[in-house]
Amino acid sequence: MNTFGHRFRFTTFGESHGKALGCIVDGVPAGIKIDEEFIQSEMNRRKPGQNEFATKRNEGDVVEILSGVFEGYSTGTSISMIIFNENQKSSDYSNIKDLFRPGHADFTYFNKYGIRDYRGGGRSSARETATRVAAGAIAKLLLKELNIDVKSGICEINGIKAETYDFANVSKSEIFALDPNVEEDQKNAILDAKNSHNSVGGVALVNVKNCPVGLGEPIYHKLDAQIANAMMSINAVKAVEIGDGILASKVLGYDNNDQIRNTGFKTNHSGGMLGGISNGDDINVKVYFKATPSIFIEQDTIDVYGNEVVCKLKGRHDPCVAVRGSVVAESMMALVIADMLLLNLSSKIDNIKKVYEK
Amino acid sequence: MNTFGHRFRFTTFGESHGKALGCIVDGVPAGIKIDEEFIQSEMNRRKPGQNEFATKRNEGDVVEILSGVFEGYSTGTSISMIIFNENQKSSDYSNIKDLFRPGHADFTYFNKYGIRDYRGGGRSSARETATRVAAGAIAKLLLKELNIDVKSGICEINGIKAETYDFANVSKSEIFALDPNVEEDQKNAILDAKNSHNSVGGVALVNVKNCPVGLGEPIYHKLDAQIANAMMSINAVKAVEIGDGILASKVLGYDNNDQIRNTGFKTNHSGGMLGGISNGDDINVKVYFKATPSIFIEQDTIDVYGNEVVCKLKGRHDPCVAVRGSVVAESMMALVIADMLLLNLSSKIDNIKKVYEK
Amino acid sequence: MNTFGHRFRFTTFGESHGKALGCIVDGVPAGIKIDEEFIQSEMNRRKPGQNEFATKRNEGDVVEILSGVFEGYSTGTSISMIIFNENQKSSDYSNIKDLFRPGHADFTYFNKYGIRDYRGGGRSSARETATRVAAGAIAKLLLKELNIDVKSGICEINGIKAETYDFANVSKSEIFALDPNVEEDQKNAILDAKNSHNSVGGVALVNVKNCPVGLGEPIYHKLDAQIANAMMSINAVKAVEIGDGILASKVLGYDNNDQIRNTGFKTNHSGGMLGGISNGDDINVKVYFKATPSIFIEQDTIDVYGNEVVCKLKGRHDPCVAVRGSVVAESMMALVIADMLLLNLSSKIDNIKKVYEK
Amino acid sequence: MNTFGHRFRFTTFGESHGKALGCIVDGVPAGIKIDEEFIQSEMNRRKPGQNEFATKRNEGDVVEILSGVFEGYSTGTSISMIIFNENQKSSDYSNIKDLFRPGHADFTYFNKYGIRDYRGGGRSSARETATRVAAGAIAKLLLKELNIDVKSGICEINGIKAETYDFANVSKSEIFALDPNVEEDQKNAILDAKNSHNSVGGVALVNVKNCPVGLGEPIYHKLDAQIANAMMSINAVKAVEIGDGILASKVLGYDNNDQIRNTGFKTNHSGGMLGGISNGDDINVKVYFKATPSIFIEQDTIDVYGNEVVCKLKGRHDPCVAVRGSVVAESMMALVIADMLLLNLSSKIDNIKKVYEK
Repeated sequence: MNTFGHRFRFTTFGESHGKALGCIVDGVPAGIKIDEEFIQSEMNRRKPGQNEFATKRNEGDVVEILSGVFEGYSTGTSISMIIFNENQKSSDYSNIKDLFRPGHADFTYFNKYGIRDYRGGGRSSARETATRVAAGAIAKLLLKELNIDVKSGICEINGIKAETYDFANVSKSEIFALDPNVEEDQKNAILDAKNSHNSVGGVALVNVKNCPVGLGEPIYHKLDAQIANAMMSINAVKAVEIGDGILASKVLGYDNNDQIRNTGFKTNHSGGMLGGISNGDDINVKVYFKATPSIFIEQDTIDVYGNEVVCKLKGRHDPCVAVRGSVVAESMMALVIADMLLLNLSSKIDNIKKVYEK
Repeated sequence: MNTFGHRFRFTTFGESHGKALGCIVDGVPAGIKIDEEFIQSEMNRRKPGQNEFATKRNEGDVVEILSGVFEGYSTGTSISMIIFNENQKSSDYSNIKDLFRPGHADFTYFNKYGIRDYRGGGRSSARETATRVAAGAIAKLLLKELNIDVKSGICEINGIKAETYDFANVSKSEIFALDPNVEEDQKNAILDAKNSHNSVGGVALVNVKNCPVGLGEPIYHKLDAQIANAMMSINAVKAVEIGDGILASKVLGYDNNDQIRNTGFKTNHSGGMLGGISNGDDINVKVYFKATPSIFIEQDTIDVYGNEVVCKLKGRHDPCVAVRGSVVAESMMALVIADMLLLNLSSKIDNIKKVYEK
Repeated sequence: MNTFGHRFRFTTFGESHGKALGCIVDGVPAGIKIDEEFIQSEMNRRKPGQNEFATKRNEGDVVEILSGVFEGYSTGTSISMIIFNENQKSSDYSNIKDLFRPGHADFTYFNKYGIRDYRGGGRSSARETATRVAAGAIAKLLLKELNIDVKSGICEINGIKAETYDFANVSKSEIFALDPNVEEDQKNAILDAKNSHNSVGGVALVNVKNCPVGLGEPIYHKLDAQIANAMMSINAVKAVEIGDGILASKVLGYDNNDQIRNTGFKTNHSGGMLGGISNGDDINVKVYFKATPSIFIEQDTIDVYGNEVVCKLKGRHDPCVAVRGSVVAESMMALVIADMLLLNLSSKIDNIKKVYEK
Repeated sequence: MNTFGHRFRFTTFGESHGKALGCIVDGVPAGIKIDEEFIQSEMNRRKPGQNEFATKRNEGDVVEILSGVFEGYSTGTSISMIIFNENQKSSDYSNIKDLFRPGHADFTYFNKYGIRDYRGGGRSSARETATRVAAGAIAKLLLKELNIDVKSGICEINGIKAETYDFANVSKSEIFALDPNVEEDQKNAILDAKNSHNSVGGVALVNVKNCPVGLGEPIYHKLDAQIANAMMSINAVKAVEIGDGILASKVLGYDNNDQIRNTGFKTNHSGGMLGGISNGDDINVKVYFKATPSIFIEQDTIDVYGNEVVCKLKGRHDPCVAVRGSVVAESMMALVIADMLLLNLSSKIDNIKKVYEK
C-alpha cells in the first residue's frame, strides 16, 4: 500500500534514518523530455535546512535516476529515483526508543506491526515526502507538455490569513507566503512558537491553471475525491477543502452556484470541478496542516511496557510543517492531475479513434 | 471506476431515471448473518419523500438480494442487490434537456463523454447513493460481529451549529439533528430556504466507536485518506475534516497533541488516528455539504450549442442535501472501516499464524 | 475478487441456482452503439439446451440492460446486465448436499468459506460464464469500432485434432468444429462418452484479426499474461498456449523465430506477440479444457463429516464443456483486448496530445 | 504496470544496460526474520556466468536492502532492494541499434513507445528477472513461517523429457535437471545448439508442498489463473499447464477426476487445485520456454526505417533460457502463493475474529 495512482502511479520506499529513500514512477508515457535539473530544483524547494523556519537537518536531497530514461527521454518503462540519506542523527532518538511521542505515529505503528523503527519516526516520518516531490516533478514534466500549470503557497499560519494570493511572492518568500502583507506576521508566529519550544499549524493553497475539462472518473474516482485522498495522505494534514469548501456549506444555493456564460463561468465557488469532473476553470484546494507534533515541551506519555513517563524530545524539527508541506501538496496535485489525465483518455470512442486510426 | 474499496469493495450502477440501481459487494467474508430487515431499515433512513425537509420523490427503495447469500448467511461470493426505480418523472426534465444546470455535473459530463442522460442528472444524481447505503448495511453487519459501531448526525445547517452531540436525538429528528437545542432553528433555516425557492448547506458528523487499533495502511492507504476519499465521493461534499481538523491548523502543537496515560489518550483532538492509523479512540469526521444546486430561482446558463439561456428548474429536490447525505456519509464510513479491517489482517506474521496454524 | 480487467473491467455475480446472474461492465467509452440484438445473439451461442452435445438445462439466457445506455449509445457510465435463472432443478442436488463431488470445487469452497451453496455448484458453476459472454459482447462492440475481429472454434476433442482451421464451419457446427473433416469423429467421441455416463475434454482455438501493434503492458500486464490469466479463469481450463506454444519449447531458436520482411513477419510462430506486446499479426491462443467432472459413474468421495461415501450424480450436464467453453474463451479474449486497447492509449506523449490538443 | 500481486506485491525497475535494477516489495507482514544470506543464495542460483550452459555475462548480482527491515526483521513497510549492473557491454549492441532482432521485443517496444533502449533489449531483457528472484526470496521467507515449500527443476530440454522428478538432483545439476538419467542428453542438446550458433527450448516444473487448503479467490483471482499470469509474464514462456494439463483434455472424465478418501485425494491429476482454489495436495505446474531468440545465425529482418536487412548478432546469450528461467518460475510461484495466502485471510468471519478478538 505504498503506491499512489492508477495509470500514472508511483511507489515509494525508505525511512527517516535508513540508507536511502526512493520511488518508482510507473505509467509515464514515452517521449517526455526528462529535465533532471528541473527535478532537482523541485527537490530543492522542499529540502530541509535552508533557513530558520525549517528543521536544521541538512540533507542535499540529490536525486539520481536509475532507470526509465534513455538519451534524455522517458521510454515508457518504470522510472526509478533514489535519494541517499546523508545527515541522520539516530542518537537523537535513543532516549525515546521505548516511548510513544504524543501526536506521532509511534503508538499506532507499534500496535499495528508489533515492531517499529524508532529512529526519526522511521517510515512514518515526513522525510518520505521527498520522494513524492521527485515523482511529482515527473508528473509536472508531463503536464508541461499540455501547458497545465500547478502552483502552491501558504495562505495561513497560526490563524493569520492571506488576504490576497500572489504566486509571484511565493518563490521569493522563505515561508512560501502568498500575501506579502501578512508574511512578516506569519513568520513571527512561527519564530515565536519555535522560541517557546512549541510549534504552529498552517494552510496551503494549491492551484491548477489550464486544466482540461473532463478530468475525474465518476463515481468513485472523482477528481475531488482523488485530491482529498492525495492531500490527506500527507503527514499532518487534518482537513481538505475544494473551492469555497466550508463556506459552501454556510451560504444559500443561489449564492454558491456558478452561473454560466458562453465566455465561461461567472464565478468559481466550485474550485474548478462539478460532479467530480474538472470544468476547465482554475482548480483551488486548501490543505490544513496541524501544528508539528514534535515540540520540546515536556509531555505525558507511556512507554511500550505501559509505564507512564515524561516525553522530552531532542532532535531537529520544523516549527511549522505546513511550509515545506505546501510543496508536497503541490506535487501530489501534479500527480493526481497526471493520473486523471491518462484515465480520461478512454472516456469516449472519439478519443480512441484519434489514437488508433491511421 | 464505479468501484470503491480494496478487500471489501463494492461496484454500483444505475441512473436517476433508469430502470434500476444496484451494487455488487465483493469480499464479504463468509459466515456473516445477513439480516435483510436491517438492510431495509438502513435504506429507509435515507429514503426520499418522508417529510417536508426532503424531496417529494416517493421511492420505496426496496432492496432485493440476488446473490451471495445462502440460507441467511454470506457465502463469501459476490452479493448483488437491486433497487428498482418507481417514481421517476422524466418529463420534469424535458425543458432542460439541452442546457447545463448551474452547480450540476451536466456541463462536465457532456464535455467528458460527449453525451449525457439529462433525466434527473442521470448517473451524476445523488440517487446513486441509495446503493451505497445498501452496501454500507452489509459492511455494518460485518462490523457488528466485532462490536464496532458507526453513527452520524447533522451538526450544522446553514451555519447554525450544534453545541452538543446527542446521537439519541438523531433517530428522533426528521433532520437527524445532533443537538435538540438548535434543531428547531436548523429546521427553520431549511424551510426558509425552501420557501424562497433556494437551498441550504450543512455539515454531518460521523462517529465510530470501538474501532480496533491499527486500521489504515501507510503510506498511501491511510485511514484518514481513505475516509477523505470516501466522503468527497459523495455528491455535494466540498470539505472533509478529521478530528479537530481546521482548528488543528490554528492552535499550537502543545495544545493539539493528545498526551497519553495508561488509561488511554487524555484528549482526542486527532479524531482517533495517528499517522493515518486508528489509535483506538473514537473516530470523528466532519463532512461539509454545499447547498443543493437544484433551486427554483432563475439562473444564467448556456445550452449545449453555446447559446446563453435562462435556467428555470422544475422537479422535486431536497432543500438541504446534507440531511439525507449524513446517512450516506455514515454508510461510506462503515465501508471504509470494513475494508481497512480486512486489509489490516496481514499486518504482522502473528496474525497470519493465528489463522493458518492448527 | 469478482472483477476482471483494469480500464475496461467487469464484475459478476450470481449462482447456478440463485435468482439471477449478472454483471457490471465499467470503463466502456461513451458513444458506442449498443446493439442489443448482437448481445443476445452472443448469449445464444453459449446458451445451454440447444442440442444433444450440451446439457438439457433449458435456459433462455435473456439479457436485460439496466443502466449505462441512453438512446442506444453507451454513456460512459457503468453498464449493468441481468439474466434471470429460469430452469433450475435444485432437487437434483439434494442427494449430494453433504458430499464433495470429485473434480469439482465443492471440497475447496467448503474448506475455504466454511459454508457452500451446494445447488449446482453455486458460484463455482460454469453458469457464471453466461455473464462473461454478455460482458464480452460489449467488448466486441468496442472492438468493432476499430475493425478488430475475435473468433473461436473447437480444434480438438478427446485427442481428435483439427488439421485445418475453417472459421466458416464453426457457425454451422453444433460443436463449433474448426475442421469439417474430423467433425463427425469429434461428435462421436462426445456421444460415446455421454452414452457411457462419462465425459470428454477438448481444446478451443481463439483468434484475433487486425489487432493493433502495441497492446500489452510490460512487465506485469503483458498481453500473453493477461490472456493466460483470462483463459485459466474459465471453469475446467487446465492449460493455455500462445502461438506455437509447447512446440516452441521443442524446436531450435532458428526455427521458432519469426523473421521479418517489410511486408510483415514471414511466419507467425509467436502467436501475434513479442515481449508480451501485440505485433500486428494474428493472435492465436489454444485453451485446454479438461473432461467435464460431472459424470454419472459411481466415484469414491467423502462427505463434510469426513465419512467415506459413494458419489452418484443426477442432474443435467455437458458431456464436453470445451464446446460451449470456446464461446466463453472468445468472450474473455475480447475483454482482454478491449482492456489492453484502453491501457495502451497512454503509451506515448504523442497519443495524449492527439486527444487533448485542439 | 510494473507491479505484480495484490496484498503481497512487488514493483520492479531497471534495464539490461542501465545503472541498476531493483524492486520494492510491499505488503510484507511485520516480524519476519529477513535472512540476507538466504536472499543472496537465491540470487546466486539464477546468476549468469556460472557455467557453459549460461551466458558469459558475469554479474555478481549482489542485492542490497535499502528499506523496510529493522534489526533483522521486516517492519511492515516497503522493502526496497537494489542490484547494480556491473558487466554490461553496450558496444555489443551498436550494430543492431536500428534493427529489430527476430523473436525479440524490439519491434513491439519501438512501435508501442516510439523509442527504445536498444542496449541488450533494455527493459524487455530477461535481466529484469533478477529482481523477481530477490522479491521471491522475501516471499519464501514468509512461506517458511508456515512450512510451505516451493521448488523447481528442469523436466524437458529440446523435447528430451524427464521420466522421474528428483528434486535432490536439481541442486547438484548445472542445468537444474530433475532426472539424472536424461541429464547428460539434455546437456548435450544445449551444447549442440550452442555450437551450431543456435538455441534450444525447455520446460520447467514448479512444485509446492504443504500449501494450505483455500488459497485462490474466485472467480477472477483463481489460484491457477494467478499462476498462469505469473508464469506467462516471464520472458520466453509460451505455455503453462496446471497438473495433468493438456493430458486432461485428452482423457475421459472418470480418468481425470481425483477421487477422495478420508486420507486425502487418491490421485493428483488436478495439480493441487479445484475450482481455482488449492486443495492441500501438491501444486504442480509446467512452464514452457521457447528456444532463446538470440542466435548467431544470420536472419532476415527490417530496420526502424523499414529497410530489409540481415541481422547478425554479437553478445553473450544463454543457449537455453529455460534453465535459469526455472529459478524465476519458482520465485514467481512463491510470490503468487504469498499473495494468495494474505488474500485468503478474510475468507470467513471466523478468521477475522481470531485476529481481532482478545
